[in-house]
Amino acid sequence: MNNETLLKNLRSIPDFPQKGIMFRDVTTLFKDPECLNIMVDELYEMYKDKGITKIVGIESRGFVISSALAIRLGAGVILCRKPGKLPAETVQESYTKEYGTDTIEIHKDSINENDVILLHDDLLATGGTMKAAYNLVNKFNPKKIYVNFLIELVNENLNGRSIFDEGTDIQTLIQV
Amino acid sequence: MNNETLLKNLRSIPDFPQKGIMFRDVTTLFKDPECLNIMVDELYEMYKDKGITKIVGIESRGFVISSALAIRLGAGVILCRKPGKLPAETVQESYTKEYGTDTIEIHKDSINENDVILLHDDLLATGGTMKAAYNLVNKFNPKKIYVNFLIELVNENLNGRSIFDEGTDIQTLIQV
Repeated sequence: MNNETLLKNLRSIPDFPQKGIMFRDVTTLFKDPECLNIMVDELYEMYKDKGITKIVGIESRGFVISSALAIRLGAGVILCRKPGKLPAETVQESYTKEYGTDTIEIHKDSINENDVILLHDDLLATGGTMKAAYNLVNKFNPKKIYVNFLIELVNENLNGRSIFDEGTDIQTLIQV
Repeated sequence: MNNETLLKNLRSIPDFPQKGIMFRDVTTLFKDPECLNIMVDELYEMYKDKGITKIVGIESRGFVISSALAIRLGAGVILCRKPGKLPAETVQESYTKEYGTDTIEIHKDSINENDVILLHDDLLATGGTMKAAYNLVNKFNPKKIYVNFLIELVNENLNGRSIFDEGTDIQTLIQV
């Protein structure tokens, strides 16, 4: 069930970044101390018993909640970024978008086989970037991978969940 | 005085992003749960009595610590971003870099005159981006602006502090 305070504070912006898209703007949730607390409290309740050792934040709105939740869970934070921004040796994953191909990467020494990973981003729309992040993290053979979004778009014929393998543990805080 | 654990875990990478630059890589501090806790604890001690209402994180490594500290301080988080990434109406500030000009922006409704602002980024080198962020936030006429970096480069003839007006409250966790 959606938290009323979060729903009420989530801003919707028509035609961004292009005509026909109703953009869900999480910055209004970040800005409000009460919403920030609610989000991290709810995420903590979801994952407190999972033994999470690292949270992988997806560039770049995914970075925002990662550290607050990581501190609550006693985990570390890993940045998943576009190429050229991480300074040490990386592992990459490429994926197809509507027009062309994109690549994301994480540091090679950031994850090991003993880690339990929580992948986090703000928004589940098509799910393309997160699926690539999942495949990327999976190359490290961690014990388990959980997937989390603040917001899931469910009314726009997107069904982002469908591109993940059945059995993937995907949790979202708000469904719109 | 530098925290020994943070100093020991900070990674230095020669010749990134270009030859001659010794890059200080905070991702090794984000990755480690102990370092993450130390950073947020030390920042909390620095700012707990300042009445901070909003933390402005500078794109995009500045986003990481912002929410964890915001929750501790009871503040909200504002994203300061490059143009085209924030969906609602913004206020901009442009500044000169070594080659050319850059622009940053924040949402127009993100700050008001009752706010006490903490500007946060990972690294103080030339200080150009942060100075622009300071000028940008100052347009909103908040009660007070504090400036914070995780790391300050002090041995490379940079003196990033010198581009800020005298009396600007600038705190850094690690000096290298």
